[in-house]
Amino acid sequence: MGLFRETLGVEVLSAGEGRAHLRAAVRPEHLNLHGNAHGGFLYGLADEAFALASNSRGAAVALSVHMQYLRPVFEGDVVEAEAVEEHLGRRVASYRVEVRRGGDVVALFTGTVYRTEGT
Amino acid sequence: MGLFRETLGVEVLSAGEGRAHLRAAVRPEHLNLHGNAHGGFLYGLADEAFALASNSRGAAVALSVHMQYLRPVFEGDVVEAEAVEEHLGRRVASYRVEVRRGGDVVALFTGTVYRTEGT
Amino acid sequence: MGLFRETLGVEVLSAGEGRAHLRAAVRPEHLNLHGNAHGGFLYGLADEAFALASNSRGAAVALSVHMQYLRPVFEGDVVEAEAVEEHLGRRVASYRVEVRRGGDVVALFTGTVYRTEGT
Amino acid sequence: MGLFRETLGVEVLSAGEGRAHLRAAVRPEHLNLHGNAHGGFLYGLADEAFALASNSRGAAVALSVHMQYLRPVFEGDVVEAEAVEEHLGRRVASYRVEVRRGGDVVALFTGTVYRTEGT
Repeated sequence: MGLFRETLGVEVLSAGEGRAHLRAAVRPEHLNLHGNAHGGFLYGLADEAFALASNSRGAAVALSVHMQYLRPVFEGDVVEAEAVEEHLGRRVASYRVEVRRGGDVVALFTGTVYRTEGT
Repeated sequence: MGLFRETLGVEVLSAGEGRAHLRAAVRPEHLNLHGNAHGGFLYGLADEAFALASNSRGAAVALSVHMQYLRPVFEGDVVEAEAVEEHLGRRVASYRVEVRRGGDVVALFTGTVYRTEGT
Repeated sequence: MGLFRETLGVEVLSAGEGRAHLRAAVRPEHLNLHGNAHGGFLYGLADEAFALASNSRGAAVALSVHMQYLRPVFEGDVVEAEAVEEHLGRRVASYRVEVRRGGDVVALFTGTVYRTEGT
Repeated sequence: MGLFRETLGVEVLSAGEGRAHLRAAVRPEHLNLHGNAHGGFLYGLADEAFALASNSRGAAVALSVHMQYLRPVFEGDVVEAEAVEEHLGRRVASYRVEVRRGGDVVALFTGTVYRTEGT
């Protein structure tokens, strides 16, 4: 088994300067005891999009994240995470990630990084 | 493969009313491209402790989480997550989870739940 | 002196179902020791927009808020706060507030409420 | 009228390296339309403690804050805010502020700063 992103089954749909768009299907190993997608799975997917988007601007380390869970997600659901840049400062940058299933937003993630190579 | 908590390799050291104490070792499948523990792995571990602690009070669903990353974690490190209850209201409760490696706090997690069976 | 919103000098530009748009000018009594707008002033303005937008759906109490500071704000600056609804659930709702000076976003606020009269 | 801290009526009980302890009484100009202390007042008090504690380590600017509201606060209540340092890194530091009325925690604040003079 490879990296954590393979554990999550993440597929990169597109990525570029300050943005990333990912997809993953909810498999049995992503569930919690209630039979829903584990909060850590949805977070992991959003975090991957955040990492791709923020590191597109040079090396960056995550400082803090705020995650909101809006709707439950179930086995077999396909979810997408789309990261956009909200702020790009010299030392700090901020990203917003929407996690969607079809047209529904199921979770919202906001992340702040410290840019170790910021210019 | 079983549930997400098995994917994470989480071991429950203790759990009780409003609290939980978990442990996991960082394995290759938990790493990011930089060779550190993936943010989603540390989050998943903290989230498991949060879920155990909050559901000890009756069914609850996560609403929002704040996660802070303080120090990097590497392959082979053993990390513990300890959840304590900060507030238990009729409909809403709040938990704080420290993620530690030995004596060092490596991440801090704060989570709020809605108690669907709150009394 | 009246309510806290008068202390802040908040003017309501528009408000409606799940949204609100406010404005305030930074006065001497809103400054911190560095001569910038106090974080509490920018927060207070955003919080007013959040309260107006969320209570438009029936009574609601704030549970948690995430606030990001992106750019400093100075005496005499005129700032606007615009709240939009990100999620309206039966018991929980979520709002996002942009705080802007002219075309620049200076702070981002995300708030979650518990709807005490949710239907 | 002086600075925002005077608008809030904040009294510094003690302050030192990485910590601060403040107090304020809830006055009419701190209320919202429901007759409770405005969320912005409680935040402003916590933010003052955060600013004092974090600037004790050299100049620092706030990046992001997470605020949880646990119990309502009323006119005439005396509330205290106590800030402690959770992490002091070279470039980033993190503080936790408890807002209490007597023995009850009424709000919890977590703040992250970027240390512009970090060493």
